[in-house]
Amino acid sequence: MGGSNWQKALLHPDSVALVGVSDDPAKTSGRPLKFLRAAGFAGDIFAVNPTRATVQGETAYATLSDLPHVPDHAFILTGADRALDALEECEALGVPVATVLATGFAEAGATGNANLARIDALIARGKLRVLGPSSIGLANLRHGMTLTANAAFAEPELPKGGLFVASHSGSLIGALMSRGKRKGLGFAGLVSVGGERDLSIGDVCMAALDDPNVTGFLLFLEHMGHADRLRAFAQEAARRGKPVAAFKLGRSEEAAELAQSHTGSLAGADEVADEFLRACGIARVTAFEALLEVAPLLRRVAPVTTPRRGRVGVVTTTGGGAAMAVDQLAVHGVEITAPSIETRARLADLGIDAGDTRILDLTLAGTRYDVMRGAIEVLRAAPEFDLVLVCVGSSARFNPDLAVQPALDLIDLPGHPFAVFLVPDAPGAVQRLARADVPVFEDPETCADAVAAALHRLVPNLPASVMRCADGSARYLDEAEAYQRLRDVPVADWLAMDVTAPLPDLSFPYPVVAKVLDVAILHKSDAGGVVIGIDGPDALAQAVTEICENVPRELDGRQVTRVLVQQMRKGVGEVLIGMRHDPDVGPIVVLAAGGVFTEIYRDVVMRLAPVDLDTARHMVDSLKLTQILDGARGHPKGDLEALAQAVVAVSKFALDHDIIEAEINPVIVLPRGHGVVAVDALISTRAG
Amino acid sequence: MGGSNWQKALLHPDSVALVGVSDDPAKTSGRPLKFLRAAGFAGDIFAVNPTRATVQGETAYATLSDLPHVPDHAFILTGADRALDALEECEALGVPVATVLATGFAEAGATGNANLARIDALIARGKLRVLGPSSIGLANLRHGMTLTANAAFAEPELPKGGLFVASHSGSLIGALMSRGKRKGLGFAGLVSVGGERDLSIGDVCMAALDDPNVTGFLLFLEHMGHADRLRAFAQEAARRGKPVAAFKLGRSEEAAELAQSHTGSLAGADEVADEFLRACGIARVTAFEALLEVAPLLRRVAPVTTPRRGRVGVVTTTGGGAAMAVDQLAVHGVEITAPSIETRARLADLGIDAGDTRILDLTLAGTRYDVMRGAIEVLRAAPEFDLVLVCVGSSARFNPDLAVQPALDLIDLPGHPFAVFLVPDAPGAVQRLARADVPVFEDPETCADAVAAALHRLVPNLPASVMRCADGSARYLDEAEAYQRLRDVPVADWLAMDVTAPLPDLSFPYPVVAKVLDVAILHKSDAGGVVIGIDGPDALAQAVTEICENVPRELDGRQVTRVLVQQMRKGVGEVLIGMRHDPDVGPIVVLAAGGVFTEIYRDVVMRLAPVDLDTARHMVDSLKLTQILDGARGHPKGDLEALAQAVVAVSKFALDHDIIEAEINPVIVLPRGHGVVAVDALISTRAG
Repeated sequence: MGGSNWQKALLHPDSVALVGVSDDPAKTSGRPLKFLRAAGFAGDIFAVNPTRATVQGETAYATLSDLPHVPDHAFILTGADRALDALEECEALGVPVATVLATGFAEAGATGNANLARIDALIARGKLRVLGPSSIGLANLRHGMTLTANAAFAEPELPKGGLFVASHSGSLIGALMSRGKRKGLGFAGLVSVGGERDLSIGDVCMAALDDPNVTGFLLFLEHMGHADRLRAFAQEAARRGKPVAAFKLGRSEEAAELAQSHTGSLAGADEVADEFLRACGIARVTAFEALLEVAPLLRRVAPVTTPRRGRVGVVTTTGGGAAMAVDQLAVHGVEITAPSIETRARLADLGIDAGDTRILDLTLAGTRYDVMRGAIEVLRAAPEFDLVLVCVGSSARFNPDLAVQPALDLIDLPGHPFAVFLVPDAPGAVQRLARADVPVFEDPETCADAVAAALHRLVPNLPASVMRCADGSARYLDEAEAYQRLRDVPVADWLAMDVTAPLPDLSFPYPVVAKVLDVAILHKSDAGGVVIGIDGPDALAQAVTEICENVPRELDGRQVTRVLVQQMRKGVGEVLIGMRHDPDVGPIVVLAAGGVFTEIYRDVVMRLAPVDLDTARHMVDSLKLTQILDGARGHPKGDLEALAQAVVAVSKFALDHDIIEAEINPVIVLPRGHGVVAVDALISTRAG
Repeated sequence: MGGSNWQKALLHPDSVALVGVSDDPAKTSGRPLKFLRAAGFAGDIFAVNPTRATVQGETAYATLSDLPHVPDHAFILTGADRALDALEECEALGVPVATVLATGFAEAGATGNANLARIDALIARGKLRVLGPSSIGLANLRHGMTLTANAAFAEPELPKGGLFVASHSGSLIGALMSRGKRKGLGFAGLVSVGGERDLSIGDVCMAALDDPNVTGFLLFLEHMGHADRLRAFAQEAARRGKPVAAFKLGRSEEAAELAQSHTGSLAGADEVADEFLRACGIARVTAFEALLEVAPLLRRVAPVTTPRRGRVGVVTTTGGGAAMAVDQLAVHGVEITAPSIETRARLADLGIDAGDTRILDLTLAGTRYDVMRGAIEVLRAAPEFDLVLVCVGSSARFNPDLAVQPALDLIDLPGHPFAVFLVPDAPGAVQRLARADVPVFEDPETCADAVAAALHRLVPNLPASVMRCADGSARYLDEAEAYQRLRDVPVADWLAMDVTAPLPDLSFPYPVVAKVLDVAILHKSDAGGVVIGIDGPDALAQAVTEICENVPRELDGRQVTRVLVQQMRKGVGEVLIGMRHDPDVGPIVVLAAGGVFTEIYRDVVMRLAPVDLDTARHMVDSLKLTQILDGARGHPKGDLEALAQAVVAVSKFALDHDIIEAEINPVIVLPRGHGVVAVDALISTRAG
């Protein structure tokens, strides 16, 4: 691995080589040299180009071996084939890190496969760490290290600061930098991670973690690959108190998956990502601008261990402006809290009439420094709030001394965290607030998105990851075998019988159901393999005969050898509990409303598995169906505590080495005090 | 009413009087004089102030009667009491319009009520039209008519243009103006309508409709009061081809109403507003900035008569930037359409490889004028699209000639409408595009919000409004009476019987249900008044006896005199159909999934009533439950056509003069070809 050597060489190299750098500074492969010189990089910059004596007026070396000394970091700007040669040369010379611009590794059929095999072999040897391929480069602005071909670094004054950006998309680095500059935010580093063949987004961020210049991380995620590295980074970042925010593409996939039905897709890819990021303590925002705006806020709002809505106190100089923010906060599940009687009294002492509304509207009091300052101070000290939102109207544009200056003067004094929402366009106020590190928002939607993400951010709470390899094939257990594995999940009384043996005496009462018992038949009803409502021994004998006749007819002569007989149970509702190993984030447990409603209403709750009883109770509480299971509209109350226990039990399959997936569907929820019972179960295990 | 006289006096007066204007131009009541002079208003401006000889250096008149001539428009800047005196003076003198700044009419208890009565009496006389109270004023920028106390009009260069803004919130006028200015958008008029005691937002917009300077309308709505005036305006605006967009507060109210259950709240207040605006052909956006950004787009995307998702073709110089917009468009229900084979061939002719992805990513082709221009031209001509979205990356900031200029050069040439999303911060490009009237977006979220609002905008389709007055009290019909009113909604066979009479012969088969028939008993089951599964005459007799015993026990001795016997029907699903008169928007018809799922999953579709069969079919298609009723997962298919007919029938109750509300719950959907049947109904009528 090269230890932390590669980490310094990645982000803070003393020397860099530009392999294949063009003489034309306008070309993609010419830009890095121009940008490094413009940014004043203090280390050695070696131009490597076998076709020229000089490049952009600087000495060009024919090969890496010709350089005066081995560089810390090589940026390889050639096409894919020559990039592989260059990588192997880097490895041979002992260069610790190389960044690869070229695409064309995975893309190009047979050649692509050969290229991939070659780069993978190099990575496996572990001597050279690789960023990319398809990385447009990276920058460490504090050290003038703009090792990038991204046109956005033509920016005349690069905005330096404490934010570290890591992105699957190279082009969005530029969008974030320019938008951040407009908002008065600055960056320590910006990294395009490209194809993550070796170094992933988690590895790169981990390398920046102990840089004292870095105050927080912003991630632009296109997918959840290498989630194990991301979780490792997130845990370390939390330990150091450095906040992490993320914007992730793919919110719309949910819709596309509506039509599917098994546990796997019940928790859609984006929902799994959402839950994973939450468990990692990463604040996910849904609006692009909020990714930037949330950063200063996260440094002031500590993560919590128990999920909360968050209580926000609002003070405003404009009723309409505050109403927009409040509306959006409510949409995001945040609680808008009214000032308490004590708080109103303290405000009255300052001559401020808080009225009896939930927000403190200073319109009548007038937009004055002393009024706004007093109001913010009182709200910041009031125990009923977790955060104070200050909304400023037209004065922010024309006279920031009135209602913006109090925020600047108060930000470093003790009290609840606060943030400012500027209702008009007020670029001067944005810059003044940002420079003083005051969280500031320019739109009601981004304000609410970011405030909710900050208030809902958790201390990382990650179960030990037990990733199931996809090697080997899956073997399904038959229903009887599955029941035997259910351990702490109660099952409705059952017995398995051979259809040729005499009918056994049942140790449980009628009515019962008879089901074909055959691991090859996943859809028993469709095969005519299920008879319900059997009320006595004669009917049972007849049912077995029926099943033995139906199944071969439906399934191409498949003979029935065994039948499972089970007591029929009637409860107050049905749910599904499942566990599966997500290929990115590892084991998850799913609780869903049962039957057809599962699919059309997507009433599903998901967590990383295994879960403890408290988390399982939260899951049960979060299911919409629970309103009915808990006695709404005169329904009998179900045994929700037993349901939570069953969720815990199923989630523990995550720890069983051989179980790939389990789905208990339905689980019948019995009346309170009577528990729950499984009446079907499907478990797949690793074959062999 | 004063005819259109008041309309010109409102928005384009030749002379204005400022009643109670302050000598201090920094004070709220001093600002209008300062703003009018700064804006260069060409008409007469009369300062009325009985306490001073001059105001801000101009002659002050003691009363309105002292003015050299009767002004067109009086802006009354005094407190509420003196404002009433001034209004009455205006009326006596024949001033056509007065705007009232003061609050304190509705607010202040007994005094407030007296004030309200006085202003209402004046309004009822119809000689003087009143804007406000609580209006911060209005502006007609094309005529330097800044008759407003809004501090935002201190803006040094007011952005003149074609947009007409009308807002319930006075302070947001300033936010919209400054944000519009930043985006290169200009305004014809901006009006704070205040309390709408006389002139409503619809009236004010109607007054601006024939101003040739006005190219479109932006509404900021806090509520749906005076919806009748708004619909009248919207219909006229559509007739003239002037688009209307709206932002409405109150999206979060939905959540608050989750707990309630009757038809009324099934369609929550915001959902009703949403449907009303849609039917009015008003494009509702959900993001504040999108209200501004959507305006130029609406002028280019014609409204449609049939609801559509809309097909968008995307061309981009940045994969990540386009992915954000595409993701959001999908969330908003818009279809991202891939170029057809023909379109790919036309692109190939230009040397552009469209690959096989849904979006046309020009990253590999390079950011060049001719490539971007050619790509836009081909997509604008391709029949598979309704709109083309052009995403521009870093070059928009540094080199707008490459990918922004083609949009400027093409905007007035024929082809599908198109819009530009700028991924980086690029204020120069925003201004250039806006000045050329090219729709331009700065955020992926506002882009998708506005594009969806434009593509989904309908030609107004408003049923004749039949508002039911809330006068008099409601009378409920009993179940038998209700069935007799159902006309075109089939009812499961039934008869009503006197419990003292001999058991009648049934003309329909068993099993049946027996239900207490008593208009005073709304919850029959809770009262022990329902027996189901009655399989023959003996059981029926016993059921009637049971009901006669149960009800008095449960309901304080209430005696049972009649019972309704009804055939039990089993269908493939249950729904609710309801009609009610919304106090703002008039009659609505609601279709919802039946039973407990109605409430917890809020599977509800709503339209203004009455509806035609096509609309009813759309409603049925939109219900999530329809996936099951239409045979998903092996369920038997239900009679959806009969369901649509039943929806039409219930919606026609909107035309019955005496019916206030109707709820048929449940309606049993029978297998295809067998229709639907109501098995309960509740109708309330106007008493007397």
